[in-house]
Amino acid sequence: MSGTTIAFADLQNRIWAILTGAGMSDVQADAVARVIAAGERDACKSHGIFRIEGVLRTLRAGKVRGDAVPAIADLEDGAIVRIDGQHGFSSPAFELGLPLLVDRAKAFGLAAMVINDCTHFSALWPEVEAVAGHGLAAIVMCPSYATVAPWGGSEPLFGTNPFAFGWPRQQVEPYVFDFATSVAARGEIELHRRAGTPLPQGWAIDAQGEPTTSPEAALAGAMLPFGGHKGSALSTMIELLAGVMIGDLTSAGALEALGTTALSPAHGELVIAFSPERFAAGRPGDPFARAETLFEAIVGQGARLPSQRRFAARRKAETEGIVLTEAELQHLDRLAALGLAAAD
Amino acid sequence: MSGTTIAFADLQNRIWAILTGAGMSDVQADAVARVIAAGERDACKSHGIFRIEGVLRTLRAGKVRGDAVPAIADLEDGAIVRIDGQHGFSSPAFELGLPLLVDRAKAFGLAAMVINDCTHFSALWPEVEAVAGHGLAAIVMCPSYATVAPWGGSEPLFGTNPFAFGWPRQQVEPYVFDFATSVAARGEIELHRRAGTPLPQGWAIDAQGEPTTSPEAALAGAMLPFGGHKGSALSTMIELLAGVMIGDLTSAGALEALGTTALSPAHGELVIAFSPERFAAGRPGDPFARAETLFEAIVGQGARLPSQRRFAARRKAETEGIVLTEAELQHLDRLAALGLAAAD
Repeated sequence: MSGTTIAFADLQNRIWAILTGAGMSDVQADAVARVIAAGERDACKSHGIFRIEGVLRTLRAGKVRGDAVPAIADLEDGAIVRIDGQHGFSSPAFELGLPLLVDRAKAFGLAAMVINDCTHFSALWPEVEAVAGHGLAAIVMCPSYATVAPWGGSEPLFGTNPFAFGWPRQQVEPYVFDFATSVAARGEIELHRRAGTPLPQGWAIDAQGEPTTSPEAALAGAMLPFGGHKGSALSTMIELLAGVMIGDLTSAGALEALGTTALSPAHGELVIAFSPERFAAGRPGDPFARAETLFEAIVGQGARLPSQRRFAARRKAETEGIVLTEAELQHLDRLAALGLAAAD
Repeated sequence: MSGTTIAFADLQNRIWAILTGAGMSDVQADAVARVIAAGERDACKSHGIFRIEGVLRTLRAGKVRGDAVPAIADLEDGAIVRIDGQHGFSSPAFELGLPLLVDRAKAFGLAAMVINDCTHFSALWPEVEAVAGHGLAAIVMCPSYATVAPWGGSEPLFGTNPFAFGWPRQQVEPYVFDFATSVAARGEIELHRRAGTPLPQGWAIDAQGEPTTSPEAALAGAMLPFGGHKGSALSTMIELLAGVMIGDLTSAGALEALGTTALSPAHGELVIAFSPERFAAGRPGDPFARAETLFEAIVGQGARLPSQRRFAARRKAETEGIVLTEAELQHLDRLAALGLAAAD
């Protein structure tokens, strides 16, 4: 691929400069720039520098506080760590809470981090990878905004409600998956609309609740959960645990509060961390070695572990740098020059 | 429906008499009979009296201890409650651990029950409903035996790996789902085989790893996970958390240890309980009332909540008794008369 290579730290600094230039504080810009640079490094283009404009747009609309200082909301002695995002982005709140979550999970065997009142623009794999980096397994989930109909229903109610899981591995990147509980991401429908191609069957319904393959009708209607009633059940669980239970917005509430799907939604997030060492204590076998046996059995029969394309891109970027096209570099320059005004 | 009505307690007693007649101890027979009677009460025929023969067969094969006394394996002060099934059935082990799990979840906000070394014959909804009965949300999962290929693979490795969730409701039965992470249950393939009808596309692959609609070829090959790579990822998570992490068998290990899918598999089980009151503490809104708003929005647009058919059957059974056909009653009589020999 032709283009200019840039080191991770340099890309992160350029993004940081754009964000601080647009009025974001260090604590917000540090974490957000790290997550966006990581998306670009992993060739996960939908969560790379593409995201900067959305972040700036949400900031400019006054829907997220660029100077929020996340705070530990609750230092009770249980297994719940509660972080108040203070209406900033989720990433700095997560980073603040991570050491506490790790301590509690190791002390109690499992623990949860609740992040309240934060705006989400990122995937969930940065979170599960960060927890796995401490030798813990993790489940992370959150609402989004209501664009998905329940199975058998006719109107948007659930979000694309991502569900992510991570398991630590000792020599290589962790086992990680991170998927939407809708059949497709909203961005994929948008891509079909721009390309003028019909959607596959089963992705969406129109505003009357009837199946449709028209991207326009789908955007005016609702997406469908993956796996029929099972995906719909998982979405319900995510709305309950990572919305209702943690005292934060559901996807319907998040859309109502924001009034648009063009900005990043604000809601909560739930991170559950498990200590395999504690769970396996006193039992035969090393859980980390046994997990490798499972992974070998998956790969050995020709199936793939999730996230491998991302990890391959990461390894390449770590030795060779991240490749950006001339257009992408110019885009960064433009965003840097314009500051907050660039969010238009 | 024609037949004879029988009260829940009477049915449970008849099942209990069959099980103790076949050599099971009170503690094992009590819990197993309660779960089987509950399946019949809920018109969940695949988990009702149909299960008795499998229980007896597994007992007779010496693959489960009918006199096992489950024990609290670990009274550490963390959030993990560990129950040693002592190679008996999972149900009495679960019942032993439930009060401890409830106490820990209320004390810490969330807690886990690990059940090790137990034989599984039941659905997981009895567990999530029991936890929900204490005002807690619950996730329950376990391996089974290897009959499902990973997405993109060619050989059985995962189990049908059930995943169940429950949320407490105040006036009605809890919100409950309990599904296999395979497209279909193995019993459904067996039904197609008996009926001589082809399987729907996407259910299974043959022994060469090629898609098949032949029930025989499917039984010799592997079932497929639901939802493609997403269901496959969930199955991997269940193998890791509810097999490897808890120091118990994976589905592949369970099949290897048992050598057949004709008996009930032995492996562990993981129950995670959450206290909505603790998670929502200090936040706006009552989580139980907010959950009802979500359920109303689902039902209000014509979609259904899971388990409603079961709950309707239960309500009917609770007022009118459980209806058994003459053939079913004779079957129970035969099992009672034959005792352990009936397992042939």
